[in-house]
Amino acid sequence: MLKNKMTELLKIKHPIIQAPMAGGVTTSTLIAEVSNAGGLGMLGAGYLPPAQIREEIREIKQLTSNPFGINLFVPNEFDITENEIKSANQFLNPIRKQLNLPQRDDLDFPNFKDVSDTFTEQIKVIMEEKVPICSFTFGIPSREVIAELKQSNIILIGTATTVTETMKNQKAGMDMVVVQGSEAGGHRGSFINGAQENLVGLMSLIPQVVDNISIPIVAAGGIMDGRGLMASICLGAMGVQMGTAFLTCIESGANKVHKEAILKAKEDQTVLTRSFSGKWARGIKNNFISKMQNYETLLPNFPVQNRLTQDIRKTAATEYNQDFMSLWAGQSPRLATIQKAEILIKNIIAEANKLSSMDTK
Amino acid sequence: MLKNKMTELLKIKHPIIQAPMAGGVTTSTLIAEVSNAGGLGMLGAGYLPPAQIREEIREIKQLTSNPFGINLFVPNEFDITENEIKSANQFLNPIRKQLNLPQRDDLDFPNFKDVSDTFTEQIKVIMEEKVPICSFTFGIPSREVIAELKQSNIILIGTATTVTETMKNQKAGMDMVVVQGSEAGGHRGSFINGAQENLVGLMSLIPQVVDNISIPIVAAGGIMDGRGLMASICLGAMGVQMGTAFLTCIESGANKVHKEAILKAKEDQTVLTRSFSGKWARGIKNNFISKMQNYETLLPNFPVQNRLTQDIRKTAATEYNQDFMSLWAGQSPRLATIQKAEILIKNIIAEANKLSSMDTK
Repeated sequence: MLKNKMTELLKIKHPIIQAPMAGGVTTSTLIAEVSNAGGLGMLGAGYLPPAQIREEIREIKQLTSNPFGINLFVPNEFDITENEIKSANQFLNPIRKQLNLPQRDDLDFPNFKDVSDTFTEQIKVIMEEKVPICSFTFGIPSREVIAELKQSNIILIGTATTVTETMKNQKAGMDMVVVQGSEAGGHRGSFINGAQENLVGLMSLIPQVVDNISIPIVAAGGIMDGRGLMASICLGAMGVQMGTAFLTCIESGANKVHKEAILKAKEDQTVLTRSFSGKWARGIKNNFISKMQNYETLLPNFPVQNRLTQDIRKTAATEYNQDFMSLWAGQSPRLATIQKAEILIKNIIAEANKLSSMDTK
Repeated sequence: MLKNKMTELLKIKHPIIQAPMAGGVTTSTLIAEVSNAGGLGMLGAGYLPPAQIREEIREIKQLTSNPFGINLFVPNEFDITENEIKSANQFLNPIRKQLNLPQRDDLDFPNFKDVSDTFTEQIKVIMEEKVPICSFTFGIPSREVIAELKQSNIILIGTATTVTETMKNQKAGMDMVVVQGSEAGGHRGSFINGAQENLVGLMSLIPQVVDNISIPIVAAGGIMDGRGLMASICLGAMGVQMGTAFLTCIESGANKVHKEAILKAKEDQTVLTRSFSGKWARGIKNNFISKMQNYETLLPNFPVQNRLTQDIRKTAATEYNQDFMSLWAGQSPRLATIQKAEILIKNIIAEANKLSSMDTK
């Protein structure tokens, strides 16, 4: 069961993908260590300029000769009104004051064309640099983009939070789909309806997806160890994608207070919020989330709100002030450990093998 | 793995509990069929008057000599203001009009002492009738009640939705705990903080509970087949409690339109609502839930709101009008089937055994 169509397609030893966490978590060291240990290291490149992606790819290639992947955000059309920006800044300015940041009244916010052009450039870099695997979040790329990538023999992985989203990914030609349960930390990958409605737990989601899909399914959300891997396989997934478990690894680039916050958190202390980015995401509840709670639905859409909170998040991170950082985490923080990625993977496989050889009769 | 401390304590063959769904779903036939098939049949007796519980117990005993259990609601103190009742009736009266029911302005609502006295009587019946197993939802009974039941050699099962709630159950002397994930249909068993915050998926919840508890853990929420059973066991549970899967069984007393609604539903069509009972519960979204959505937080607490909506639910059920019925369901409706409970259990065990003998190397 641990060797299957997923490991075959990705040309990896163990059915474990390190989730492509954006925002500097997925350092080239982390990615290479994961790939060297037989898993799939992934660069969370959604926010990265094309030139930086190229640099990182070259760095990773110097550290591993095994396959690795890149994740991109599929751009969505978004409407923004000046009023939304104004009221968002009204909520954010008192926080800026507290952090000794300049007050802001207006913003030269990104428009859809800019975001879309960046995506095209990112895709170009991935093809030019011959990255073997590319995954997508927040939607499905156009037919043309998919055709181009497939012609370059790049394996494509979609992200889905419901059966319908998974079916759309399969139809579009994805080679496999990461199915994200409600347990997952960070951004919801939902792209049909609101992400809040699509909060289905993996115990329910995986078997219902598997019954309707023929391509390999990768389970994501709250999976931290061999128990989660074997449970996912029992439910019909071929492997797992793990975020939080790799975030606290030694090689991860996550801020030390982010790691500490996860190691101290309990299973019921994460919440869904769109206050940081304009998209729903799961993180450890802190001062910022509490302060913004009543304005959640009034905030501008992604990526505008993300741009608006950038100064706050950046300053908070520099000052190790976890009150105003986005402390993304899944629902299993009690299972988080600090260790080398290689050891984490070894332990997972050892535990999975032990579980699978237990007598159940 | 399928024979363990749970099956030993409950003296059953298979680690499968039929969830004690209240409101007439758990007929004596269903309970007896489950117990005769080697699972544990459970009477959802929370709403039943003591005399009726006694009758049902005697009926079940005529149909099976195997162990079965009874579930009770632990009464919680509740505050109700006249204004809450008034505004609830303001929301409900237009619906009553639509159903040709008399308008209501006031209500002789239950007080805590009545509810508490009924619970004492229910416990008395369980001891007098020597029911082998008793489970609790919405809290933990008093030390005195637990001591009495234990002296009568009754096996006690608690319900929890977080690690802390599970630990409280263990400390109170429960023999095992049903751990309810966010996937679960019907009422949330949460009794610390709001049930809305305690929405942790089973993939996260089970291993985190297991690492902190020594008594057997039973997984509940979205589990419908052998895949769910084996996944739960991999995560560290000893067995499962299944509601929705038994609700659509031939022997279940659920209204036919309730069964039909589940068989037609998709995994993302259930929502949490407190509009029916004053307690958060998961069901298929319908007209009633949509209508009440904006008033959710203004409604009186359980069991007062439950009493207020009784006429509406009852009339809707009689008229097979699913718009105003509580269509409780977990997040796996696509896996629901109509079959005999015995066949359901047989299939689950066959699938689990098949999964556990697969080669994972």
